Amino acid sequence: MKTMKAAVFLAKDKIELREVGKPEPRAGEALVEITLTTICGTDVHILRGEYPVAPGLTIGHEPVGRIAALGAGVEGFSVGDRVVVGAITPCGRCRACLSGAPSQCSHGGDRYEALGGWRFGNTINGCQAEYVIVPDAQANLAVIPDDLTDEDVVLCPDIMSTGFSAAERGRVKIGDAVAVFAQGPIGLCATAGAKLCGASLVIAVDRIPQRLELAKRMGADVVLDFTQQDVVAEIKRLTGGGADVTIEALGTQATFESSLRTLRPGGVLSSLGVYSGHLQVPYDAFGAGLADQSIVTTLCPGGKERMRRLMSVVRGKAFPFRELVTHAFRLDDIVAAYDLFANQRDGVMKVAIRP
Amino acid sequence: MKTMKAAVFLAKDKIELREVGKPEPRAGEALVEITLTTICGTDVHILRGEYPVAPGLTIGHEPVGRIAALGAGVEGFSVGDRVVVGAITPCGRCRACLSGAPSQCSHGGDRYEALGGWRFGNTINGCQAEYVIVPDAQANLAVIPDDLTDEDVVLCPDIMSTGFSAAERGRVKIGDAVAVFAQGPIGLCATAGAKLCGASLVIAVDRIPQRLELAKRMGADVVLDFTQQDVVAEIKRLTGGGADVTIEALGTQATFESSLRTLRPGGVLSSLGVYSGHLQVPYDAFGAGLADQSIVTTLCPGGKERMRRLMSVVRGKAFPFRELVTHAFRLDDIVAAYDLFANQRDGVMKVAIRP
Amino acid sequence: MKTMKAAVFLAKDKIELREVGKPEPRAGEALVEITLTTICGTDVHILRGEYPVAPGLTIGHEPVGRIAALGAGVEGFSVGDRVVVGAITPCGRCRACLSGAPSQCSHGGDRYEALGGWRFGNTINGCQAEYVIVPDAQANLAVIPDDLTDEDVVLCPDIMSTGFSAAERGRVKIGDAVAVFAQGPIGLCATAGAKLCGASLVIAVDRIPQRLELAKRMGADVVLDFTQQDVVAEIKRLTGGGADVTIEALGTQATFESSLRTLRPGGVLSSLGVYSGHLQVPYDAFGAGLADQSIVTTLCPGGKERMRRLMSVVRGKAFPFRELVTHAFRLDDIVAAYDLFANQRDGVMKVAIRP
Amino acid sequence: MKTMKAAVFLAKDKIELREVGKPEPRAGEALVEITLTTICGTDVHILRGEYPVAPGLTIGHEPVGRIAALGAGVEGFSVGDRVVVGAITPCGRCRACLSGAPSQCSHGGDRYEALGGWRFGNTINGCQAEYVIVPDAQANLAVIPDDLTDEDVVLCPDIMSTGFSAAERGRVKIGDAVAVFAQGPIGLCATAGAKLCGASLVIAVDRIPQRLELAKRMGADVVLDFTQQDVVAEIKRLTGGGADVTIEALGTQATFESSLRTLRPGGVLSSLGVYSGHLQVPYDAFGAGLADQSIVTTLCPGGKERMRRLMSVVRGKAFPFRELVTHAFRLDDIVAAYDLFANQRDGVMKVAIRP
Repeated sequence: MKTMKAAVFLAKDKIELREVGKPEPRAGEALVEITLTTICGTDVHILRGEYPVAPGLTIGHEPVGRIAALGAGVEGFSVGDRVVVGAITPCGRCRACLSGAPSQCSHGGDRYEALGGWRFGNTINGCQAEYVIVPDAQANLAVIPDDLTDEDVVLCPDIMSTGFSAAERGRVKIGDAVAVFAQGPIGLCATAGAKLCGASLVIAVDRIPQRLELAKRMGADVVLDFTQQDVVAEIKRLTGGGADVTIEALGTQATFESSLRTLRPGGVLSSLGVYSGHLQVPYDAFGAGLADQSIVTTLCPGGKERMRRLMSVVRGKAFPFRELVTHAFRLDDIVAAYDLFANQRDGVMKVAIRP
Repeated sequence: MKTMKAAVFLAKDKIELREVGKPEPRAGEALVEITLTTICGTDVHILRGEYPVAPGLTIGHEPVGRIAALGAGVEGFSVGDRVVVGAITPCGRCRACLSGAPSQCSHGGDRYEALGGWRFGNTINGCQAEYVIVPDAQANLAVIPDDLTDEDVVLCPDIMSTGFSAAERGRVKIGDAVAVFAQGPIGLCATAGAKLCGASLVIAVDRIPQRLELAKRMGADVVLDFTQQDVVAEIKRLTGGGADVTIEALGTQATFESSLRTLRPGGVLSSLGVYSGHLQVPYDAFGAGLADQSIVTTLCPGGKERMRRLMSVVRGKAFPFRELVTHAFRLDDIVAAYDLFANQRDGVMKVAIRP
Repeated sequence: MKTMKAAVFLAKDKIELREVGKPEPRAGEALVEITLTTICGTDVHILRGEYPVAPGLTIGHEPVGRIAALGAGVEGFSVGDRVVVGAITPCGRCRACLSGAPSQCSHGGDRYEALGGWRFGNTINGCQAEYVIVPDAQANLAVIPDDLTDEDVVLCPDIMSTGFSAAERGRVKIGDAVAVFAQGPIGLCATAGAKLCGASLVIAVDRIPQRLELAKRMGADVVLDFTQQDVVAEIKRLTGGGADVTIEALGTQATFESSLRTLRPGGVLSSLGVYSGHLQVPYDAFGAGLADQSIVTTLCPGGKERMRRLMSVVRGKAFPFRELVTHAFRLDDIVAAYDLFANQRDGVMKVAIRP
Repeated sequence: MKTMKAAVFLAKDKIELREVGKPEPRAGEALVEITLTTICGTDVHILRGEYPVAPGLTIGHEPVGRIAALGAGVEGFSVGDRVVVGAITPCGRCRACLSGAPSQCSHGGDRYEALGGWRFGNTINGCQAEYVIVPDAQANLAVIPDDLTDEDVVLCPDIMSTGFSAAERGRVKIGDAVAVFAQGPIGLCATAGAKLCGASLVIAVDRIPQRLELAKRMGADVVLDFTQQDVVAEIKRLTGGGADVTIEALGTQATFESSLRTLRPGGVLSSLGVYSGHLQVPYDAFGAGLADQSIVTTLCPGGKERMRRLMSVVRGKAFPFRELVTHAFRLDDIVAAYDLFANQRDGVMKVAIRP
């Protein structure tokens, strides 16, 4: 049996590079040789045992690579094609996919299954490895145009798709005021997404100067350091009573609550954060339930058409997405990469991992 | 100065019928002689001091009557016209109204003001009186067709408008499964609203047999008594994993949480309840914020076109709205009416109050 | 080789029952033994040579039957399951399917292909036969609940799905006034669809008394015979200046133009008709392009979740869908069935065809 | 009686500067002293007798100025405030305004009236004058921020509002391909609007090199000269089968038809043109009515909140709107301005008119 290297979750605080069996694609699947991938905040949750996955699972859900083999029935692609695949791999044929909720995919089935579309590094082996099996390949392989490099598209699978979805699901439109809480990679892409949807006043909130600087170049009209001022009061002042849309991009009670307190009556709080424990919705910030406000949540949209669209945005060169990748490691050094990334040292935003 | 009788909030637990000055309409206003009104659950909150209003204010926000006088600039109406007016009276000319959130009206202004559209019996005198002043009359007077009685339309200002809005804001569509938690007057109208929007499986939850019986006639396909069974499990079973839309029609943590636990991934929780204290959103019921779920809230839509549409639904006779009015009192006896209604005695749903 | 009977298009005006090879399902496909099907107006266009298909093709796109065999990779179904399949069979994995236009499916591909989702009896063999191959079976086989008969669901594949879609795409909502032009089977289902979406004034237009009678039972509040009165003027009178949504359910210049002339400013003309030749949009009826009006077209939504939803509507028994099937024939007599149906003799609406 | 200068339509081909009575504001109105206005293509239609208005009417619907006097009941504004007013002046209180179609306003009434919101220079005196009366002033006066000049905002009333609306009504979203036919002032703003809504491939079509150059700076990724190539074929090639949204910005059969022929199945044709005569919808370009395509039309959105939002876009400085104003005239010379503009001499785009 052929083998390959893969970053495997073994136990809490233990992800290691192991030699594992190299898989072969079954009908409907593709085998992709990874040329570039990255580490996500969610992977750190897995590492720390905060999000449970099966010991022995290969981690990672942001694959860029080349088609190494195609299973039966996958048509229109060739071995050698450069492809990017979304973190979420909807099947297109289950009840959720056919009901407009493909990220909640149940793989052909007839019952809804929360988060079911997230398979890589969650319920099947992921892409921090030399190779990965792509399920439902017909719906999920997106060919990379020749004029884009691997580095150009490595944020498409999750960071851009998730970040933009905040603005899309929040229905940001021309002339809106939008506040974005937290300017990590996803928050920065949410900032860009708000601008892409036509917001004329994008307010980015964080505390790290480097991130606030980058936020400006990602489209923020105003940046606020929450350690230096009362951002709730300032956002209300800037917007005449509250933003049309507020975006929560961290997953804490504090950012959620600020998102609600800065939302205008009739506005939409678009939430990207992964929460743990009970979230509190303060009565007063919520108009007692009578303020015509909405709270919407989104799991990263996937599928090949989503990837195609995100790549078309990258080609427009309107935002410095590339600068979000601040460090590079070989796959062999992935344990060191996790160490840097998990501890947020050295101004790290995203790390490139190359097998 | 002429006087009239009015139900006035004086202090906690003290609403009394008083003789007060009869008002005259200024420019843009109308004076309406009340022929029928009713008491709302919100009025009981006011009575109990749970929702603060100024002592001396006339209570009530569900007016049916005849135009007694028209202020300058109100055109297309005549003294004597029978009219119904929404509980919420948007001005049509402020930032909120022009931004699609008329219930959050700021009366011509440029700042958002939560709940600002609710004026009757909240920030101006209400309609549990012989006469009421209707602000922004051009936008708010809806003429009652001759073939409808006062009793036919008395639920339009609040109960029907609020109840239906749950289904509308939840975007209920043909073939949806919808669960409605609590079958008071508003919950019953939410049940009818879900059916009106095309739901094919409407599940109504309550514990009072009389209300569950009425729910069936208001469109429920299935009724569940939460004291007799695990409704969360049963709804998940009936819907194959969760309802497309769930409706919270009471305003408690328990009903909110059940609404969330019975919601499918990708579904919408449409909330009508008036909450107090912190609402808890349990992490597990919410897919950790990754289940593509939405929570939407709505304040009763108002305005004359809304009233016209609701009256057109009444004319269709598809639902027994009239049966929701279970008791009748003269305005002179309104203190007794409050006593009956606030204590939910004698199977009361809504009480007709006639000056 | 095994054979089976099938209604085959041979040439203009020539559809005959032939003995043809019985197919076997490939990977991803299913073989369904037909127990009930019907003839569509589109089939008559094919018969008359007005819509071109390849000579030798088996006609028919409304299949009800039992799974006879499953190809590799189709999971969650069993041989013997009773199923209904939509007229349109989206793959769920092409660019159109992933962009929200599954009826324009390109079978896994990356280019848009108009009408591509319509395969049965158009680009692949159809179901006026003893057996039919269902492509993309995972997305398209819908199991029939035990309490529904074949007759209950035979209108789901096309007639109900198309008819309801007129109201859905027209965004009919609670309190709307809707005019439906032509009350053939699809127009009658559009009438029901408008009611299902909450319209309070549904106006059905035709000239055949029997159809107008049936329209009333399908939800029409008012029926108008266009040979007896000026329906444009009457609809404008009834609606106060124009309907919120008008539905064209025939495919002629006259019905299209009436739909436009009875549409209010800001309204939606929802078109179901199959047009030939140039359609004319009269300048005056269209507000010179400045009346905020929309014209939307729809090709019958398909897929298993659509079928499941339509069956859930049938179970509600709110409309007499069954009465639309007025005649029954054996497959052996299909030529006679075409003759009756194409010539609209004997008050025929839909014919049941049983192999 | 005081008088003022005004450009008055007298007869076909005859608009002259006249001395007319200076009006006074009634209740609900404001008198605005014009400091800057411009001429619209529609005004040229009026001049040529192609769009009928009453002889004696003052023309012009794009006012920038200062409040000179306020009628009774207009609150929150002061004499001297610098304001811009939309070309369309909705009342906020009629059936159309309360139904989401404010440009079709009927001024408080209960019947729909096509184009009713367009009053300036159409049904009431316009703003090519020293003063103009603003009806429904509470809903229509938008205060200009101090950091914007008159020149900055003169395109807001019509050109920007109309141009952007094409993308908004077409529901342009992140990653869309959009083709815009004709690059006059409105087409150029439609190009910017498509970019503002997130389109990643905006294709601008015209034949005048100067306009195509400007189109690039207004956001076009590709510009095509229809006299030099087959733009339909080229757009299909660039988009993989058709654009997601196509925008018609001229009002001719040729541009309309090209917009349809370059539209993908499931796409939206967003039409801004003012048509005369019968528009033809070719059967083949329209998928015989089965391609899930939509045609939407829009009349320039107005109201003070719309103006506020457009001004917030101007402040973002992302597009060179100012360059669209190519010439300037004194009001005294307006006949010369009409002559230049109507004959499209000297590369004119928009002319500034200053009383």
